[in-house]
Amino acid sequence: MPAIKRYHASGSPNARRVRIFIAEKNLDVELVAVDLGAKEQFSETYRAINPRSMVPALVIEDGTAISEVPAIWRYLEERYPASALLGTTPEQKALITMWERRAELDGFIPVMEAVRNSVSGLKGRALAGPHAYEQIAELAERSKARVAHFFADLDQRLADVTFVAGDAFSAADITALAAVDFAIRALGSAIGEKEHNLQRWYDAVSARPSAVA
Amino acid sequence: MPAIKRYHASGSPNARRVRIFIAEKNLDVELVAVDLGAKEQFSETYRAINPRSMVPALVIEDGTAISEVPAIWRYLEERYPASALLGTTPEQKALITMWERRAELDGFIPVMEAVRNSVSGLKGRALAGPHAYEQIAELAERSKARVAHFFADLDQRLADVTFVAGDAFSAADITALAAVDFAIRALGSAIGEKEHNLQRWYDAVSARPSAVA
Repeated sequence: MPAIKRYHASGSPNARRVRIFIAEKNLDVELVAVDLGAKEQFSETYRAINPRSMVPALVIEDGTAISEVPAIWRYLEERYPASALLGTTPEQKALITMWERRAELDGFIPVMEAVRNSVSGLKGRALAGPHAYEQIAELAERSKARVAHFFADLDQRLADVTFVAGDAFSAADITALAAVDFAIRALGSAIGEKEHNLQRWYDAVSARPSAVA
Repeated sequence: MPAIKRYHASGSPNARRVRIFIAEKNLDVELVAVDLGAKEQFSETYRAINPRSMVPALVIEDGTAISEVPAIWRYLEERYPASALLGTTPEQKALITMWERRAELDGFIPVMEAVRNSVSGLKGRALAGPHAYEQIAELAERSKARVAHFFADLDQRLADVTFVAGDAFSAADITALAAVDFAIRALGSAIGEKEHNLQRWYDAVSARPSAVA
């Protein structure tokens, strides 16, 4: 296994999406912690890796820095295709891209948006990245409503399929799990008593060894 | 060329991202118009293709429907690799994914968000998809500020490189062009007099035959 370094933070749901991916593929990538509490992501050293000051990032042998979760996933999958999580046929690759993206746009992003626009420690930092934006209380409320729809829609989807993108565990499950767990932890969301399909899936994916990553 | 059908709407910037991609790869895909003005995207027929009621969508020979721009792109690129727009090496694929995503998250999405949260015809439809959400005026303003940052940041990036992801035209340029053009058309944005790099790139990508797609 080559000297790839991955920069992460233990509390970051985006960093977790990459940790689960690495665990599922059983890769041995060196993890380098970035201390978000000490604002290390804004240091000159880290900004040379990711000018957007966000974790996670991957630095490969030649020094090239890759950030953004789907970009890191794509690199690792292309280089280590075993235990594919992004599909193997053109059709699978497309459908996993589609379902992963829906889980992100309808679930993961609203959860992050609700948190960033309401938590007092993130005042003036309503969006990750190099620019400062004020929180919008009305947006936090709308995002919470979207998270409730996400849970309900995902429950309905999982009435038809075992995993989010179909018969096999994929990157779409990773994003959905990270979204659901962060909604529970940071927003106090809960899987509804009648959301049996969502609960069945949540129990199954949470029991995989990768879920503790 | 097989009987792939692509559902689109001429005014949709997301549909344009796929039209430019198809034009750059010189593919012959049948286009089926969806009349957004007549709310055809909410019809039973179209919801069978995309339950999220959004264009564009691709329907392949076996009837499988693929929606979401990056998913449609991935399918077409895997099946027709010539004139690659998503990269050919693992590193290129990752970096194009990264830059395309940044153009979307920092440019394309804020433009759409500013429009959807301010245009009177979209009252109660502040987000595309099956659920109804009210507009948030404060969000529209924040999104406009983000679009200005996007223009400035892209200008800075293009001081170092010919195209958004590096030396070659890629999917990242398509998303950036669709974002800039829609900002100009729908928000009245303009490339700043001092944004020479952005202007140089904009003139070059707009002159490609695919830009009229």
